Amino acid sequence: MDLLEGIYSRRSVRQYTSQPVDKALLLEIIEAGTWAPSGLNNQPWRFVIIQDPIWRYNLAQLTQYNQIIETASACIAVFVDKNSMYNDIKDYQAMGACLQNMLLAAHALGLGAVWLGEILKSSSDVRALLELPKDLELMAIIAVGYPDVQNQVSNRKELAEVLLKEF
Amino acid sequence: MDLLEGIYSRRSVRQYTSQPVDKALLLEIIEAGTWAPSGLNNQPWRFVIIQDPIWRYNLAQLTQYNQIIETASACIAVFVDKNSMYNDIKDYQAMGACLQNMLLAAHALGLGAVWLGEILKSSSDVRALLELPKDLELMAIIAVGYPDVQNQVSNRKELAEVLLKEF
Repeated sequence: MDLLEGIYSRRSVRQYTSQPVDKALLLEIIEAGTWAPSGLNNQPWRFVIIQDPIWRYNLAQLTQYNQIIETASACIAVFVDKNSMYNDIKDYQAMGACLQNMLLAAHALGLGAVWLGEILKSSSDVRALLELPKDLELMAIIAVGYPDVQNQVSNRKELAEVLLKEF
Repeated sequence: MDLLEGIYSRRSVRQYTSQPVDKALLLEIIEAGTWAPSGLNNQPWRFVIIQDPIWRYNLAQLTQYNQIIETASACIAVFVDKNSMYNDIKDYQAMGACLQNMLLAAHALGLGAVWLGEILKSSSDVRALLELPKDLELMAIIAVGYPDVQNQVSNRKELAEVLLKEF
């Protein structure tokens, strides 16, 4: 898939077929995430793969978007390692860059994915469920599966609205 | 350029030839940035293009990386609009996703770019220089030019170090 075309055609995919996603593809998505830039190259990202239906069911109870997590073939929980952080804003930005790489990689691999942020309200419950230490802070969950819906429409502001000045 | 290949081969480029960068390419980089996902699709990103050498010189005085800004053909200052924000962590993540799209787009267009974050220490001076209101918070400056150095090496942690668990 062409890079620019991929950036423009990527959509949040929330409905999936029952086809399972190969583990190798999930690892490729994570690998792509790790090639994001980070301040001082601190690479603060950490990942947990959740494929088992019972674990996904338990995770799903912690968000109003339970159906997405239950029907996606896999979820990747993305954490920031607080011990690796050096600047909150820059580290959260790096995590966003990592998440975007993951979404683009999923798209390039013919998968559909969505960045779930609402579940951050249950951050500590997610951490407890996955038996992770407190120095890991949940950043998002990415749900992944083969898309059941294509050609979704999305919209963006006109360039003139966001390009404020030119010198 | 292939999407996955682009993610893996992108590097921070800090040395540029004197070849100017067409305005159309800068607009394409910004357009790519706007196609990042954002929570509630709030699209909090705003952009300022700085090409004029005198303006770049003045901007360069606000960072220790002055030489990058002075030798890059163009800079794009990226701000978050505080009035559009709804959740600090999620909005900073969205800004990181936007910045990553911009870096990938520059790479796909044959340009070299680098995400400059150190200049955030001079955020209010940058805002004053560019005569922007206080509701815009500087997120980063992206320097763009034709790369003078190729095949830069970078490194990442092994997957086993960042993939903590699998369920």
